[in-house]
Amino acid sequence: MTDAFSFRLIATDGSARLGEIATPHGVVRTPAFMPVGTQATIKGVLPDEVRRTGADIVLANTYHLMLRPGAERIAALGGLHKFMNWPGPILTDSGGFQVMSLSELRKLDDNGVTFRSHVDGAMVELTPERAVEIQMLLGADIAMQLDECIKLPNPRPELERAMRLSLAWAERSKRAFERVPVGRALFGIVQGGDDAALRAQSARALTGMGFHGYAIGGLAVGEPQEVMLKVVEDVAPLLPAERSRYLMGVGTPEDLIEAVARGMDMFDCVLPTRNGRHGQVFSRFGPINLANARHRDDPRPLDEQGTHPAAREYSRAYLHHLVRVNELLGAILLSTINLAYYQALMAGMREAIGQGRFADFCAATREGWARGDLPPV
Amino acid sequence: MTDAFSFRLIATDGSARLGEIATPHGVVRTPAFMPVGTQATIKGVLPDEVRRTGADIVLANTYHLMLRPGAERIAALGGLHKFMNWPGPILTDSGGFQVMSLSELRKLDDNGVTFRSHVDGAMVELTPERAVEIQMLLGADIAMQLDECIKLPNPRPELERAMRLSLAWAERSKRAFERVPVGRALFGIVQGGDDAALRAQSARALTGMGFHGYAIGGLAVGEPQEVMLKVVEDVAPLLPAERSRYLMGVGTPEDLIEAVARGMDMFDCVLPTRNGRHGQVFSRFGPINLANARHRDDPRPLDEQGTHPAAREYSRAYLHHLVRVNELLGAILLSTINLAYYQALMAGMREAIGQGRFADFCAATREGWARGDLPPV
Repeated sequence: MTDAFSFRLIATDGSARLGEIATPHGVVRTPAFMPVGTQATIKGVLPDEVRRTGADIVLANTYHLMLRPGAERIAALGGLHKFMNWPGPILTDSGGFQVMSLSELRKLDDNGVTFRSHVDGAMVELTPERAVEIQMLLGADIAMQLDECIKLPNPRPELERAMRLSLAWAERSKRAFERVPVGRALFGIVQGGDDAALRAQSARALTGMGFHGYAIGGLAVGEPQEVMLKVVEDVAPLLPAERSRYLMGVGTPEDLIEAVARGMDMFDCVLPTRNGRHGQVFSRFGPINLANARHRDDPRPLDEQGTHPAAREYSRAYLHHLVRVNELLGAILLSTINLAYYQALMAGMREAIGQGRFADFCAATREGWARGDLPPV
Repeated sequence: MTDAFSFRLIATDGSARLGEIATPHGVVRTPAFMPVGTQATIKGVLPDEVRRTGADIVLANTYHLMLRPGAERIAALGGLHKFMNWPGPILTDSGGFQVMSLSELRKLDDNGVTFRSHVDGAMVELTPERAVEIQMLLGADIAMQLDECIKLPNPRPELERAMRLSLAWAERSKRAFERVPVGRALFGIVQGGDDAALRAQSARALTGMGFHGYAIGGLAVGEPQEVMLKVVEDVAPLLPAERSRYLMGVGTPEDLIEAVARGMDMFDCVLPTRNGRHGQVFSRFGPINLANARHRDDPRPLDEQGTHPAAREYSRAYLHHLVRVNELLGAILLSTINLAYYQALMAGMREAIGQGRFADFCAATREGWARGDLPPV
């Protein structure tokens, strides 16, 4: 490619990949975790703080933004980067997942989906072409094709129907994207549920069309981890090595190392911020629930080796207090600590892959999680 | 005084005073506005950010902290400064105001007040001695005597009874404070409602006892501004020039300049953070309600001359969006912007007093407020 978007595979270690995505708004080091900025804000965290956690790229949700404040409005205001004061790369989803999971779905046919806006009750149509248009109005560095994402488990004919519809929409998305100035990227999304043959069909058809990158969709919808990892294991080898691979909506820290081990490069998930708002942090000792009474008198920081100052500068007793009295600062600090932990985990994986010791890194990381959060000595 | 607490009057301009309070945790430039950290956190704002707005000192509420997490617990954890990660000076109130306004009051007599904790239902006693003890456990740089704060209007006999009880408690607070190591300060509180004679009696009795500073309490409880200012006008001249003067629970930006003009030095109020959480900012153009639809497409920052980056770096359209979709970042940014505006107002007053142009500063400030928030040109 001669445009500003590119992916460079720097090193591999087993199936794990170290890479770099160049976008018009900067470089994304992969494996990468993308904090979720649903409504043009990472919930509870200032953009500068998001950057300080080590994030290269954030995700924003087309569904929410098209309804409020509206894609045309954001475009008129100079685009999403300026709107949300995030100068780095942005990936937007296509809106499909939320249309199907959140809205009162009115009609799904080959042409697209029509649904009722929860904001003003208006009927809104989302087609593959409109999804591309909206994402370009937002100014996304990486856009996603519209797809149909269905729950698991689901009967094979239903999985096949949704997979074929998603392929047809991939084709139309790609055509719509041809009118987009070079520099931006469009990713295709592999569907097919937990059926290996359908997944393979989807992956082959998409790579045949040719996209800037490939996502695995339709996972992290409630299925067991082994089902998810099996799909990743089946699909990743079918994707071209020279394109980045994005596992949508995943996951826990453990999911991340398992998926990187199977060759995935990009991830997004609401867990760090959502769980942070509910008093849970992820750490090298595994998850810690700050609401637990055992922290009430504990003067220790969450992790004196934590990468982010917030993990070192506040006592567990204070964080416990903030959670118990439901103070905003609790949500702010724990969300930030979680985002920083996720980024530290990704940085650790990247370093390990580059040095050919990814398996050791994973083993040591799992060992820390298994040891658990020890009481004060 | 030979201890670490002192007040230095640097300049006066009319009745307005420029000064400096030295405390064990640093200097407070007066006139000073103290952000309110009710539960050991300024709602929605990181301690570093609070400092960056220009705040020298914060206030914390004894009532809330004695109930949760408890004064003894905070003391065991190293005190409130360490607990809330605020290295600067802290003033604590005595708990009396909230006991009387928030709790199910069970018994008020000469000895103190007994009330039911909203946290665990336990009966809790607060006496003048215990209020001092709690504040010293918290590690307050400036502690307040326990007083009885009653609503306005109230019949004179009731105002007089509460004023006399507060005086008796002042005496006991002072005695209890004699056991406190030097360096910390205790302020007496003038009561007496809107009755000039009662206020004068209270002020004279308190100054006779001798405190490190004097507060005017029992205002900002719903009375008209002119009633409040009349009391300030009556009381301030009765207080010794060489002690700092604190007008409790005040107020709007307009209240602040009026009270400084009448000789007051210190203020606290929840308005900047509470109104920020509800979409309102204070500005040199007066109050602005960001929820208003007129901001929806406005690419301008709140104030391109705003002292805090948040007032310059985000568009009104974005702030409007955050308020409308009820995002945490809206509360965070608007609270921060408001605290910064309050501190800029105080800094402006201090500079003007030092240069003998306080009246001009007030006139120019009022003119800006009167002009209002202009639409884009």
